[in-house]
Amino acid sequence: MNYYAAPIARLIEEFSKLPGIGRKTAQRLAFHVLNMKENDVVNLSEAIIYAKKSTKYCSECANITDIDPCSICRNENRDKSIICVVEDPKDVIAMEKTKEFKGVYHVLHGAISPMEGIGPGDIRIKELLLRLQKNEVTEVILATNPTIEGEATSMYISKLIKPSGIKVTRIAHGIPVGGDLEYADEVTLSKALEGRREL
Amino acid sequence: MNYYAAPIARLIEEFSKLPGIGRKTAQRLAFHVLNMKENDVVNLSEAIIYAKKSTKYCSECANITDIDPCSICRNENRDKSIICVVEDPKDVIAMEKTKEFKGVYHVLHGAISPMEGIGPGDIRIKELLLRLQKNEVTEVILATNPTIEGEATSMYISKLIKPSGIKVTRIAHGIPVGGDLEYADEVTLSKALEGRREL
Repeated sequence: MNYYAAPIARLIEEFSKLPGIGRKTAQRLAFHVLNMKENDVVNLSEAIIYAKKSTKYCSECANITDIDPCSICRNENRDKSIICVVEDPKDVIAMEKTKEFKGVYHVLHGAISPMEGIGPGDIRIKELLLRLQKNEVTEVILATNPTIEGEATSMYISKLIKPSGIKVTRIAHGIPVGGDLEYADEVTLSKALEGRREL
Repeated sequence: MNYYAAPIARLIEEFSKLPGIGRKTAQRLAFHVLNMKENDVVNLSEAIIYAKKSTKYCSECANITDIDPCSICRNENRDKSIICVVEDPKDVIAMEKTKEFKGVYHVLHGAISPMEGIGPGDIRIKELLLRLQKNEVTEVILATNPTIEGEATSMYISKLIKPSGIKVTRIAHGIPVGGDLEYADEVTLSKALEGRREL
């Protein structure tokens, strides 16, 4: 039996399809929407549709953007000879927040995962190789996630690129800053040991 | 500095206005929307605006509904002589889920709270009294929340109604079913003692 009026039930249904939103949260959000000013509701509704309709993948780096090429690829102050390879557009944001990286990106949109049936052809590796042929690239930084899939993807890409003589690097793994040795898992700790540097 | 393309930044902004949605969740939801099928995005966007535009308050009980009077007030099998007074439309849903209550509701849309400047005139008490005058009501069940505001609201309403001779009751407070005496707070426990019944 449905306890909600049809439009509310529909909204709860739609909200609960979103990641991390259960039935209870969806209900709270739906009733919040009903209490919002009509103007604010229109804004929310339009922002959703507008974000979807006005964004596309950058033809250079495959990052999500409203203007092609994206703001990073358009920026003349960015060093086009260094490409940082990430799995996801969210990873670009994370890297940008460090304000350390001045090169450009390449978004794979996934990682190789035989378990989920995602092979090298399903992510944007081919596009990366094409960029390396077209442009003058001196270094490819592999910044895929330190998961089994991310590591496999990095290994795969590095094997493809190395013969061309382009420098291929992998971001460091180790104890996070502010982390605690005591609570670090063994794999992270051995990676931290392995990557130790002279002071 | 803004790391996001404008439409994404706008969507994150809109999402983070929702209750319980922080910046990080808003970002995750926004990127999820970008990955959704366009059709699904349209559905979500429309459900939001439709829920807001097609719902109103029931002229009888002030519950949120798409058709006035609401499905409960329209239902001829419901006992119109028993009114259950709740603070919020969500409370109606909670009560309905028990499948125990066969009367009708009255939604106050809030509780008296001098701290927040909400007086008796700011919630729908006047409408409740009007209903009691117009209709044949034998019992008013006060099901406001067991908070200071909810208790104060119940006390206030019961004092207004009692002179008219209508039976006024308050839902029981006590140990929740499945709860543990050890972890019950003192106030709940003393309420449970106070409300003990002979077996």
